[in-house]
This record gives sequence, structure tokens and C-alpha cells, in this order.
Amino acid sequence: MTATSAITIRPAASGDVPAIIAMLADDHLGRARERLEDPLPALYYDAFERLSRDPNIRLVVAEEGGRVVGCLQLCILPGLSSQGASRGLIEDVRVASDRRSRGIGEELVQWAVGEAKAKGCKLVELLTHHTRVDAQRFYERLGFAHSHVGMTIRFSS
Amino acid sequence: MTATSAITIRPAASGDVPAIIAMLADDHLGRARERLEDPLPALYYDAFERLSRDPNIRLVVAEEGGRVVGCLQLCILPGLSSQGASRGLIEDVRVASDRRSRGIGEELVQWAVGEAKAKGCKLVELLTHHTRVDAQRFYERLGFAHSHVGMTIRFSS
Repeated sequence: MTATSAITIRPAASGDVPAIIAMLADDHLGRARERLEDPLPALYYDAFERLSRDPNIRLVVAEEGGRVVGCLQLCILPGLSSQGASRGLIEDVRVASDRRSRGIGEELVQWAVGEAKAKGCKLVELLTHHTRVDAQRFYERLGFAHSHVGMTIRFSS
Repeated sequence: MTATSAITIRPAASGDVPAIIAMLADDHLGRARERLEDPLPALYYDAFERLSRDPNIRLVVAEEGGRVVGCLQLCILPGLSSQGASRGLIEDVRVASDRRSRGIGEELVQWAVGEAKAKGCKLVELLTHHTRVDAQRFYERLGFAHSHVGMTIRFSS
């Protein structure tokens, strides 16, 4: 761990949504998928309300000097397999482009892994797009194995 | 669709847990992970209670002539990305070994994809172990793309 950042990881609030969407959109995949408008479309706040009501979902941000510089969503999913173990699913990990390579992503992911362990998970899983080769190296460095194939079906409407 | 099966897909009940665990254990990966004992360890029923209380999780079974011959778990996950789209996550898809190649798995997955669509999901995702080459071909045939890398970290204790 070579991070020199002084960040705080805390639950995301409604006021963080624009900063989170800006990070999600700042990306070769996200650019085409998000609507980074001012004001931000209400559908993002509606989604924030939905996930805030879900006790199994934790959306957190990394804050540095009052600025939101990273985000991560962790879902804790009960299930029968692996002797009834819950699983953690990590999604939407992003770090602001000008704050990368400072250990912020690592702190976020380590937080999620620790939280999943604390909630009794035996497994944490994630899907990362096959073009995100840097992300795959990053997760391998944090102890994740390239054990699975991630498959998706996306609906056009 | 060449299925000739006459199956019913319905929510799993507590009495289905032994049949589900038997399917999860009947597998080169599951054999080492599950405890297929009689009576079944209580931890499986505890997990069933947890997932039954979760409004975002649907554990279903395929029933054929009164026998449970397949299972699938679908999680509907709210999130901010892709314009606040919810995502469906499919897990623990199994068909009894003597009832394969009859379209039962396809019916289960098509049910889950339809259910995710009906719940407003724009995306359905899943992880399948890299050794399950047949499963990958199966999902590709149903319209899934091999778009992501699935990474996991498993805790030993």
C-alpha cells in the first residue's frame, strides 16, 4: 500500500450524485451511456432513492479535501450456494481522472472487501469490461482471481 | 426453441431447499463447496430465510411432474450507471443432470431475462466459471455477450 491520499470513505448523499455521474461518464464506455447535463436528469435522483432504500446496497464515495474523487457500489446478496454464503458484488468503481494512481481505488475496494467480510460474505465478485485491462491488473493485485467469464445482455429500449 | 419439457417455473419454497442443494452439489465445483447431508444443515434454511425476505431477490425452481428439476436466482439491483438503470444478476442456474438438454435451463434463463425487463432493467449480467465452457455457449445462444471478465476473491474462513 503506497497510497499517500488522505481520503474519507462515506455513504453517498443525494448531493453527491452529480459528481458520481461525472465520473461514470468520464470513460470510453460511460460517455455514450450517461447524460451528464446541468441540471442532471431526474432519473439519476430516482435511482439514488431506489438504491438508498435497499438495505443490501451500499453506495459510497471517497472524499478528499471536500471533493468527491471516487465511488463504489457494494451489494450484499444472500444465496444458497457455498453453504448459504452471502456474496458481495462490487460495481461502478470509479476514481476522478486527475486523482488516479494515488491508492484511492485500492482504498475503496479494500473497504468493500472488508465490509463484505464483516457481513458474513465468503465471496466477493465483480464484472469488469474486457477492454479494461488496467482494471483487471488492479484487481489481481488486490487478490482477485480471473476465475469467471462475465456475460451480459443489454436491452436497447 | 426445441424444448419439449412441460415445466412450471415458480418461487422456491422452503421444502425445495434439499432438491436445490442436491443440484448445486452435483457438479465438479459444487461437490467440494456444499454439504449435502441428511438432514440438510440448518445454515441452508437460514440462508433461504434471508433471501426470502429480500424483495430484490427471486429464487425460482423449475418443476416437472412434481419434481424440482432446475433452479435460478435473479437479483434486481438498482444503481446509478446507465442512466440510473437497474441491473439483473443471474446466479446459481442448475438443471438436474438427468434432465439436461431438454430446454429447461433455457426456459429458466428466458424467464429471468423477461422478469428483469419487466422490472425495468436495461442489463442482465452473470458470472460463469471459466471452466464451464458449455454454459458459456449456452448463454451466447440465448443472446448474452462475452463482454466482461468475472473476478472473484474467496475468503477461506
